[in-house]
Order: sequence, then structure tokens, then C-alpha cells
Amino acid sequence: MVEKPDYMLKAKIFDIETGKNIVVLNEDEAHEMDMLISDRVLLTKGGKKCIAIVDLSTTLVKRGEIVLFSDTSCGIGARHGEMIGVNITSNPASVEIIKKKMDGGNLRNDEIKNVIDEIMENKLSETELASFVVSLYIRGLSNDETVYLTNAIVGSGSTLDLGVHPVVDKHCSGGVAGNRTTMVLVPIIAAAGLYIPKTSARSITSPAGTADTMEVLAPVTVKLDEMKDIVLKTHGCVVWGGAMDLAAADDKLIRIRNSMRLDPKGVLLASILAKKKSVGAEYVIIDIPVGRGAKIEDSRVANELAKDFLEIGEKLGMKAECYVTVGNGPIGEGIGPALEARDVLKVLQGQGPYDLTEKSLVLAGALLELCGKVEKGRGYAVASDLLKSGKALEKMREIIGAQGGNSKVKVEDIPIGSYKEGVKAGREGRIHHVDNKMISKIARAAGAPKSKGAGVLMHVRQGDKVKVGDVLFDIISESETKLSIALDIAAKSEAVEMEKVVLTRYV
Amino acid sequence: MVEKPDYMLKAKIFDIETGKNIVVLNEDEAHEMDMLISDRVLLTKGGKKCIAIVDLSTTLVKRGEIVLFSDTSCGIGARHGEMIGVNITSNPASVEIIKKKMDGGNLRNDEIKNVIDEIMENKLSETELASFVVSLYIRGLSNDETVYLTNAIVGSGSTLDLGVHPVVDKHCSGGVAGNRTTMVLVPIIAAAGLYIPKTSARSITSPAGTADTMEVLAPVTVKLDEMKDIVLKTHGCVVWGGAMDLAAADDKLIRIRNSMRLDPKGVLLASILAKKKSVGAEYVIIDIPVGRGAKIEDSRVANELAKDFLEIGEKLGMKAECYVTVGNGPIGEGIGPALEARDVLKVLQGQGPYDLTEKSLVLAGALLELCGKVEKGRGYAVASDLLKSGKALEKMREIIGAQGGNSKVKVEDIPIGSYKEGVKAGREGRIHHVDNKMISKIARAAGAPKSKGAGVLMHVRQGDKVKVGDVLFDIISESETKLSIALDIAAKSEAVEMEKVVLTRYV
Repeated sequence: MVEKPDYMLKAKIFDIETGKNIVVLNEDEAHEMDMLISDRVLLTKGGKKCIAIVDLSTTLVKRGEIVLFSDTSCGIGARHGEMIGVNITSNPASVEIIKKKMDGGNLRNDEIKNVIDEIMENKLSETELASFVVSLYIRGLSNDETVYLTNAIVGSGSTLDLGVHPVVDKHCSGGVAGNRTTMVLVPIIAAAGLYIPKTSARSITSPAGTADTMEVLAPVTVKLDEMKDIVLKTHGCVVWGGAMDLAAADDKLIRIRNSMRLDPKGVLLASILAKKKSVGAEYVIIDIPVGRGAKIEDSRVANELAKDFLEIGEKLGMKAECYVTVGNGPIGEGIGPALEARDVLKVLQGQGPYDLTEKSLVLAGALLELCGKVEKGRGYAVASDLLKSGKALEKMREIIGAQGGNSKVKVEDIPIGSYKEGVKAGREGRIHHVDNKMISKIARAAGAPKSKGAGVLMHVRQGDKVKVGDVLFDIISESETKLSIALDIAAKSEAVEMEKVVLTRYV
Repeated sequence: MVEKPDYMLKAKIFDIETGKNIVVLNEDEAHEMDMLISDRVLLTKGGKKCIAIVDLSTTLVKRGEIVLFSDTSCGIGARHGEMIGVNITSNPASVEIIKKKMDGGNLRNDEIKNVIDEIMENKLSETELASFVVSLYIRGLSNDETVYLTNAIVGSGSTLDLGVHPVVDKHCSGGVAGNRTTMVLVPIIAAAGLYIPKTSARSITSPAGTADTMEVLAPVTVKLDEMKDIVLKTHGCVVWGGAMDLAAADDKLIRIRNSMRLDPKGVLLASILAKKKSVGAEYVIIDIPVGRGAKIEDSRVANELAKDFLEIGEKLGMKAECYVTVGNGPIGEGIGPALEARDVLKVLQGQGPYDLTEKSLVLAGALLELCGKVEKGRGYAVASDLLKSGKALEKMREIIGAQGGNSKVKVEDIPIGSYKEGVKAGREGRIHHVDNKMISKIARAAGAPKSKGAGVLMHVRQGDKVKVGDVLFDIISESETKLSIALDIAAKSEAVEMEKVVLTRYV
């Protein structure tokens, strides 16, 4: 029910994306309406409504007008010149609920749902959203609150109902360069007859997200019903999660978390599990890489996170298993979309890097056992057979085709940058450490992920012995300038460390 | 030092006030620059620079252009068509400092100063500002942190150095309708030969702030050097604090605190004491009204706040005394700027309401003793003499004249609204409670503070006996419509409660 508008104002649409709902009113008129900057108004047009935050202008907006930015205008489908109903509106119920959390209270299911609902209706200001995330960070979430939050996030968006069983999924907490196990695991699992509707992310700060790498082989931007068709037909997919409306509230929470670099554990758990639950996953394998240079460096933190996943997964009715894995260096040889896609195809052809192959088989085997498809202790062997027999490769070609890619693609069809230069060992010795963060930085400087063919090709791994002048890794780029910038960064950093005993010296 | 700009873009100025620094870039161009919504850029023009947050547009902004909103353009004095330097900039140091507070750490002096400096340079986003305030609220501030914050806020703006002694001041924590003791106390103190450079606030949610009421008698918007002249000449003033640059960071913190209705105690203390310190106050009296319907209802909270004021005041080198006062009902008769100004003049003429007179004399007497001007136990009597002798009234006329008002003003010269209607007792009995919040709401509905002559005139106080039909209070307005709205609110509420034993019934 929309109440009768207090005011009717004429829309002026400004095509500015702000990521939030903002309107601009004439300053004098707003004061007469008793409105201040940052007050909240309810906008109505036809049956549609949305909440917006008020900015003021003395000259840009005349009396009787209202400027809507594109985010806001779309919310109510307003067009230039149309009359918009404007009601001064009180604060959303979330404000008191957020205050309760701030004061150390435990939130009930309906309270968490209320906050998520109001976030989805754009009723909360930046300040309120930040207050919510900061309160969750400082006060923490109980496991029950995490379950409520997961369910609220699932409820905030669309869900996938395949109508078949078992539906399985996997997740990786990230931070390891080149770690493309998903693209090996999905075809193995699909070839085994399970259903795996895998959504992946694009890169934010890394040289490639799984979605970026898969995009080298096939389109990844699909609608929810297209994804359903692909999975029902081929048993699997690797698509970009961002194009669908799954776990919609999560995107809004992630924006705030990224901006303050806050990862409240309960929110992280809810975010991941909501994505799994929204595609109907019943069995989930979670990969938590740990080690120097990985996202999680402390094995105690990794182990605690793993236990929480199990406990909360169970409360959500999902069977989860967690694997804390070795994450102190890149996995595979290529880093960057095309180079990683080449690694994946090589692994599926039985000629890929050992670590990527082995890790994919371990995780795929675990998933086969977890859902009861294969008896305990036989998972790895079954996964290995599916790989060696070429069935996984055949399945991957089927999935690539179903997503609209070239199902006959060969490794050498995948173009990589034509500018290449090796970074060489300055002394003889054993490789002590290959730094995920530095290698990623170099690959990004070379142009990845935007430039699909750019990145780094590793020639050494931790423990290898090298001589002076041996190539440690190649930098590959589609631009000469970017290659030289990346080389410059490589020269100034120690992405590949030789054997040593002291890490850092404080004097 | 401003580094060499990464990009030069042509300014398009939009006259929109957002209360924050925002620029709009062309979406494609921004992506090529590797910038996302909410990223931060450093803008430069000539020697000027400021930090702004990035919004994106596909059509409104062409490649090579940058839209600046008025807040942002003024920061660097940019005009339409001028070329602006744009650098992608990293996160401000405050982010790590805020994180430290979030994690329960104690902040050092330099860390708090860094945050306040970056707030003043508009380097912090809404999200970061909110995170800071929420962290201070949840984690609390030690007394040392409060002292650091006070000094940082003082350092963020201008300060007043009168070059004379003693400089005294007073503050009231607020929430009591009609409580205009400042306008009685200032002329008494000034007449006694002390210096009292009083800055006051305008109303935000009340029917009148002290600045609004003083404005009935004289202009209150003065510059800092004008204030200095007035105080050196007359020993006192009552001006609006908002027009000067005193304790500048406080306004930015207040905006966030109001928006989440958060009053972290340390921030409240720092906010008040910074205002006093920035005008050079050496002796300060603080009035903390407490009681049902006041801002602070719990006497334990009031007493604790009083102790904190003393302790932190001492660390700041100010001598403070606090008075927890009766605040469970309005003080004086008039509520609304003109009605309150009439009360003040009446008190100064020796014919004003008892409670306003008495409270002003007690506080003025305390201040006279605190600074050693008058021996202990004689303050009230001296204040009372200054009032009865007409010296305080004479001093008030001098201050009114110095601020540019009519120094010969009489009570009947002050215009009040011509629409008036009484709210009458529905039954016989004793007045149990007069509710500050409800009376304020009615006065605001009648038009106060914008309409200076609007408000409420009380005819009864707690404890009075009334008969059916006796007028409890008059509603006065300059508009017939507003009068009827205010009457409607009065009819639906119980602003004046008759004697009873049960407050609220839960069934």
C-alpha cells in the first residue's frame, strides 16, 4: 500500500550511477517541506515505489522539480518529465535492529530478515549499511544468527530448482594464483552423473577469476533459466554468478565489506553458503587454502573456519566437507585467463601440471564419496578413471558447447600475448617461496584479466633447484608497454625467493 | 606536494550539494583507468587539491570530461570548462586506524589526529566515517582518547584568543523546552566583569535553539573577528556557533551521529569540550537536566556523565563544574523563539517565570564562584543583585546593540503569532507531568522555530491544581492551518498529564 503522496514533483533524469538511490530537490522547497540533506523520501509512480536519499541544489533543480539519478529512476521506471509522488518517510525498522546488534544483542530470524529486506528495497543509507557490517564485525555472529543471515540472503534473490538429485557444489576461499580446480572438477563430477550448477566470480583484485578463465572457452553470462537448461542437459556448467539474481543481498554486503576490507566471519560464511543454497546444493566441498602469501595465512584460522562451515552447513540442511589445502604458492603453470584455460585443457587431456591435476582429483573424489555416489575410499580412483579415460574432457567439451563456446577447442587455439620476456635466476640455489600476491601483481600489470592473453607462466615451483640464468617465469602481454611495466615490478620485487633463513629484518 | 596528474579532464560543474565530495566519470573511460564506483581520486587545480569519490555515467559524461558537484568544485575552486588533474589515490591511513579501534585497540594521540585531519580533508567515505563512529560507540573511548579527540577537534578549526582573563563559558546537555538560561546568565556574568564568548546552536529537532531565540533580539550570524570585538567590548555575546569555523570536525561527526542516532559518550564529551576550548574557556559550568521526558532520563547516567566532564575537563586544563538539574518538564512559560525571548526579557526585568529566574541565578552564581571572582557561598547573592539592580538588563541591551539588534527592545515589541487557541483541562485535578517532547512537537507543528512567533505558552506546571475548562497552555501560530494541525496533535496526545499512578499498561 502506497499512501497518498505529500508532494508531486516533475522528474528530471540524470544518467549517473551511484550504486545507491539519490534524488536532488530544490533547496528552498526542501526546507519548506522540513527536509534536510540525507533525509529519506518514498518515491511513487504508478504502483511502483522506492526509497531515496535527499541531496539539495539551489540552481540545478527548480521548485516543483526532482532530479533522479539513473539508479533511482529505474527503481520506479520514471522518465524525464513525468510526475513523481514524494512522501517524507521515517527511518526504517532496521535502524533499531542494527542498534540492538551494536549494543551486543543477539538478533532473531525476523530481525535479520527485516534488515536484509530493507537493504534490498534500498531503504538503508551508506551510513546504516556500514553500521550493520561494522557491528557484525565487532560483535560477531552466533551460529544461529549466521543461519538466519544465510536464509535471508537466499530469500533476497532468485533460486535454482533443478528438480533432480543429487545437486552438488564446491567452493574455494581463494587467494591462490592459477588455482583453477573448478574447471577440472566440474566435468569430472558431471561425467559421474551428478548435477553441479557451478557459479563463479570474476576477478576483483586477482589476475583471473574462474569466470574470467572459463570465458576464454565459452560465454559465461547466462540467465537463470538458461543455466537450468545447460545443467539439466550436461549435468554441469561454469558460469558467472553475477549475471543472475542469486543471493542478491550478498552483492550489497560485499560492497561495504570490500570498502572497509572487513570480513566478519559470520557474514563470510553466510555469503558462501547462501550462494550454494540458492542453487539447491545438497552436498558441498569447500577448499580452504592456507599458507604464507595465501588469503588465510594462519592454519588455526583455517581450521576454525572449516569447523564453522560444517556446523552451519548442517543447520542449513547441507552436507559439507572442508579441505584445508596447501596454498603457499601458485597452482598450475599459467596465471591469467588464457594461460589458465590452457592448463585446464592440458589437465583434462592428461598432460597438465601435477599439482592442479592432483588437487582437482582429490576434491572431486571427496565430492563423489560425500554424496554417496561412490563408496568411501574409492572417490579418488573413480575421479582419476574419469579423467584418464577422456570422459571428463568429453564432458567439458559438451559443457563448453552448451554454454555457446567452441566444443572442439584445442590448447594451441587459445591465443596468448605475443610479447614475452623471461625473468631469470640471479643466483644458484633452491626455490624457497613463490609469492601468490607478487605473481598476481605482475600478471595484472601485464594486462590480466582484462587482456585475456596476458599473465605469467611459471617455470619453477618451491623446492626446485636452479642455476644462474635459468628462467623462473615468463611474463606474457598483449602490449609492449604493459610488458615493460610488469618487468619493472618483477625486477623490484622478489616474487620468487631463493633459499634463505631470515624472512624480514627489523633494525 | 601534488604529484603529476595521471589524467587531465575537463570540468562540468553540477550545482548539487551532497555534503560529500563526489565526481562523475565516463564509465568506459573509468574502466580503462581501472577505476570502480566508490574508488577515490585526488583532484588538483593550480595548487589546490581535494579527494573525491567516483560515480560513473555512460551518457551524461563524455570521455575526457569530469562532472564535479558543487561541494567538490568549491574545494578546488574549479569552474566549468577548466582542466582538472585526476590521480587515482590509495586508501587514507585512517582506514587502518579505524580498523585498530574496531579490533579493540586504544588509539594514540597521533592516530586520532590523523583520522580527524583526513575527515577535514574529505578523504573519508561515508562508509569509513560511519565505521569510525560505530567503532567508537561499541568499543568506547578511554579518557585519554577523549582528550586526544577533543584536542584534534579543536585543532581542526579556528580558535578564539581574546587575550584577556578569565574567559568563562556554560553548556547545557539539552532536551528541556523553554530552557533559555544562557540568555539570562550571559548578561549577569558579563555585568560581573568576566568574559563569556558564548556560541549556541540552532534547533535541529526542538522548537527553538538558543541561537534561534537570540535571533529574535539581534543578528546571531557573526564572523570570528566580529565575535572577538563584541566580547572585548561588552564582555559577552550570544551568537550562532555554526557560522564560525570553531571545532570544525565536530559538524562532520555530528552528521553521522544524528543519522544513526548514536551518541558515543566520549565523542559527546569531546564535542562539547572542544567547543568550549576553541573559544579559550578556562572555567565552565555544565548543566545536565535529567528526568522523565528529558534527553537524559536516568540520573545514574547523568551523574556518570558529570564525573567524566570533570575528569576530562581537568586533563584539558579547564576547570569545570557540573550541575545535574531538574529536567522533567519545560522551564519558563514560552516555547518557541519569540515566546522564549519574551520570557528572557521579563526575567531580566525582574518579572519573569520563577523557574527560569532561579535556575539562571544558581548557574550564574556557581560560575562567579568557580573562577574566583566571588568568594564561596556568595555567588547566588551577587548574581541576584546584578539581576535586581537592572545591571544585567542593561548589559543585555548592550550585547543586543553590539550584535546589531535594537537595544531598546521591549517585551511587547516582540511579535507573536496572531492565531491562538487554548488547550483546556478535561477534568479537575493536579498536574502530574508536562511532557517536554510532546510540548515541543506541538510547538513545532505550530511553526516554531522557522516561524519565530509560533509556539506554546504554558499556563500550568507540575503540581498545579486545575478545574475542568482551565487553560493548560495556548498554542500560538502565524498560520491558521498550522494552528489546526498543532491542535489536532494536542488533542491526540497527553502533553499535560493529570495526577495518576499507572504510567503505561501492558496487556
